[in-house]
Amino acid sequence: MMHFTSVQDVPDLQQLVDAALAYKADPYKDENLGKRKRIGMLFLNPSMRTRLSTQVAAQQLGMEAVVFNVGSEGWALEFEEEAIMSGTTVEHVKDAAPIMGKYFDILCIRTFPSLKNKEDDYSELYIRQFMKYAGIPIVSLESATLHPLQSLTDIITMQEYMRQPSKAAAFSGRKPKVVLTWAPHVKPLPQCVANSFAQWVNAWGEADFVITHPEDYELSEAFTKGARIEYNQEEALKDADFVYVKNWSTFTDYGKIYNNDPEWMLTNEKLALTNEARVMHCLPVRRNVELSDEILDGPNSLVTTQAGNRVWAAQAVLASILRAK
Amino acid sequence: MMHFTSVQDVPDLQQLVDAALAYKADPYKDENLGKRKRIGMLFLNPSMRTRLSTQVAAQQLGMEAVVFNVGSEGWALEFEEEAIMSGTTVEHVKDAAPIMGKYFDILCIRTFPSLKNKEDDYSELYIRQFMKYAGIPIVSLESATLHPLQSLTDIITMQEYMRQPSKAAAFSGRKPKVVLTWAPHVKPLPQCVANSFAQWVNAWGEADFVITHPEDYELSEAFTKGARIEYNQEEALKDADFVYVKNWSTFTDYGKIYNNDPEWMLTNEKLALTNEARVMHCLPVRRNVELSDEILDGPNSLVTTQAGNRVWAAQAVLASILRAK
Amino acid sequence: MMHFTSVQDVPDLQQLVDAALAYKADPYKDENLGKRKRIGMLFLNPSMRTRLSTQVAAQQLGMEAVVFNVGSEGWALEFEEEAIMSGTTVEHVKDAAPIMGKYFDILCIRTFPSLKNKEDDYSELYIRQFMKYAGIPIVSLESATLHPLQSLTDIITMQEYMRQPSKAAAFSGRKPKVVLTWAPHVKPLPQCVANSFAQWVNAWGEADFVITHPEDYELSEAFTKGARIEYNQEEALKDADFVYVKNWSTFTDYGKIYNNDPEWMLTNEKLALTNEARVMHCLPVRRNVELSDEILDGPNSLVTTQAGNRVWAAQAVLASILRAK
Repeated sequence: MMHFTSVQDVPDLQQLVDAALAYKADPYKDENLGKRKRIGMLFLNPSMRTRLSTQVAAQQLGMEAVVFNVGSEGWALEFEEEAIMSGTTVEHVKDAAPIMGKYFDILCIRTFPSLKNKEDDYSELYIRQFMKYAGIPIVSLESATLHPLQSLTDIITMQEYMRQPSKAAAFSGRKPKVVLTWAPHVKPLPQCVANSFAQWVNAWGEADFVITHPEDYELSEAFTKGARIEYNQEEALKDADFVYVKNWSTFTDYGKIYNNDPEWMLTNEKLALTNEARVMHCLPVRRNVELSDEILDGPNSLVTTQAGNRVWAAQAVLASILRAK
Repeated sequence: MMHFTSVQDVPDLQQLVDAALAYKADPYKDENLGKRKRIGMLFLNPSMRTRLSTQVAAQQLGMEAVVFNVGSEGWALEFEEEAIMSGTTVEHVKDAAPIMGKYFDILCIRTFPSLKNKEDDYSELYIRQFMKYAGIPIVSLESATLHPLQSLTDIITMQEYMRQPSKAAAFSGRKPKVVLTWAPHVKPLPQCVANSFAQWVNAWGEADFVITHPEDYELSEAFTKGARIEYNQEEALKDADFVYVKNWSTFTDYGKIYNNDPEWMLTNEKLALTNEARVMHCLPVRRNVELSDEILDGPNSLVTTQAGNRVWAAQAVLASILRAK
Repeated sequence: MMHFTSVQDVPDLQQLVDAALAYKADPYKDENLGKRKRIGMLFLNPSMRTRLSTQVAAQQLGMEAVVFNVGSEGWALEFEEEAIMSGTTVEHVKDAAPIMGKYFDILCIRTFPSLKNKEDDYSELYIRQFMKYAGIPIVSLESATLHPLQSLTDIITMQEYMRQPSKAAAFSGRKPKVVLTWAPHVKPLPQCVANSFAQWVNAWGEADFVITHPEDYELSEAFTKGARIEYNQEEALKDADFVYVKNWSTFTDYGKIYNNDPEWMLTNEKLALTNEARVMHCLPVRRNVELSDEILDGPNSLVTTQAGNRVWAAQAVLASILRAK
């Protein structure tokens, strides 16, 4: 694998999932693979799980991880070609990226969308410019439209659950029903996690996949095509095996909050409609707004397992890139 | 030792002091003890000595130290149970802590009091919630009411001084007189260092312990009980062997500055009342406000030695926790 | 070498250049030299290349690098002797520096000038105070008036270019013409890089050295003495082998922008006056303000090579200090 910015960079999804679970079973089995190798981790936006799990993953491969908070430790970058830099940006990605390419073996970048201009955000200018100019493999730590390390983790977490000896029979010979449900939130959030989850579940191809959200919250078909869209949440939840809860702002009329109906918050009452579904969320989660305490603290929640699995996803990705170099 | 948040977590104070001084004599004697182990260091507030000395201590044990500045690199955490998170907090400690417990072997946390609500601060909600939910050992890097790594260092520093061959006779057969004196400051500070010093000196039990401060600056008896309280600073200083200088804001009428009399600043004139006392301070210190240049730059100051000893205190604590796991 | 804060700290410039190029050829040849050694990196100001390249250099020598952003992770330091600290500074360098000296083997510091008071800035108070009180070797990561790691890199980069087999004949038996040219910018910048480049080229002694800038932009003679000053940029550029582009604010009437004529920006048209000169810049660069896209993206630009060489300069400096300890 050369880069890791979307599922399209992954030559063999199942192999990557298996590699991650192998690291979970034996975290230090490749602790010399990354010897004398170094990842740079550039944060243009805040991060907790992604930051920490990727550092841990790198260390377990014997790599050095160097963290750089671009805004607070450095200065604003320019991404537009031919910019006349007389404003507030201090350094062009055309100059910064190739230098990162000299200092590091792999460059990991987190950048959020503006949620103001759809075309700009969906062009993925920032991560594309780093890919164009760095000259080394790029790993997305979440970009304007996608969050592939999260989505890989999500697939891993579902497969791990289904493979448990006590569950194997229940899933034998049938596809699990996976429901991605919109949830209320207090502010407009990116579509990244939802887009990316849809993209990966579709690429996995082993799920009966339903997306449910209020009208006007349609995601880009570029990612959802292949899933069934259902505006009635209760209908969608019926017999679900996994329910992935996530808020996103509108895509069509970009970056808005339309309907923010608190009735869309998942509760135990709604969970009763499912096939004892496991509940997932990428975190951070606004408790009792996006998801109720009763679900998060209940026996069906997979969120801590899921967040813990971020380490193995990152480790499998870094290892795959190291092996391809 | 399972956690390290107060002297009450320490099964054997003297053993911990001795372990620290053994690391000072041979810093790398256990450099494989922490192999493949990792501490997470979470800062909800700024830190210099604690941050750096703990990183150094971890490295000398062969551990990886991962630093995370919660506010600037992540987002605001929620600590209240059953909170409806529609405000400014982004992630609940109930979700964040167990994930830290999956990424790290030991979790170190710094958090300050609000100085607005005594009950909240003295409930130690933040550190208690991390202890409740992380599932791994918690080390306080200073909490709302205590600063145990500092206090352990303080005991180490006094014992180290007294054990010097040239001093041993002077301290033979008698307890040193230890005076904790309040000092002026420009803003209201937590009671942590003073509380914690009192708690540890009392637990040590080998000092004639006097606390001196203006009226209205009484500390909580939960920590000071066993010490003699003396409002006359000069009286208190008489024949002191160690003078610990520290400002704190009021405890009873919480978080205020009452009397801020500059006469309470320690000077060489006052030092003359003592038994050539060594002067200690946790740092940072406001020079010529809390403590005079003449004291800090004079031969009686132990502050640099004391700050240097922070490494060995942290190393002994981490090692003790690693050994108990 | 004991400290590294200016070319005057360097006993043998050529040996340091050669050591750097030897690390470029074999980065890990001394990976045990820094075993159990630790550098502290203190940032009072932002940094990207210097920060990252020094971390990389330390790692390649087997050292631990501990980064501390003084302002955001700690608090404001006081540098004035005898200060009564009742204002906004929280800790005196007299207290902080000796503690750094206990935690680290080498202390690296970045600090910028105020550009408000020339005497203060040119006294290099901050770095001098650290040298006075830390008790360990100090490495400047750029100070108020100089940027020696950059200048060492610049000499390395020119020598490396000239030593290429295809270029050796062209430079045989003659000194290269090196031109430092002022360039426009949007805000007042320090004189550090220009001062330091002049100081190092003069110390190198192997160049025909010309400095060109608009009138009123004279640099301090303490650094430029030995160079020819030429107000006509086109005249200066004639037959140049290396053109070093950099903005600086006025030195005499301190910290101002006088003439900011966009005509001073280097273009391909001006480059035609030179001897196919290689173009250098320390970065970050304001594209199309300080330097045109056509130059930066053209075949004559050495800026990425130059920034890459920062690693080897830092590695040679750290190694030289470790060897002298």
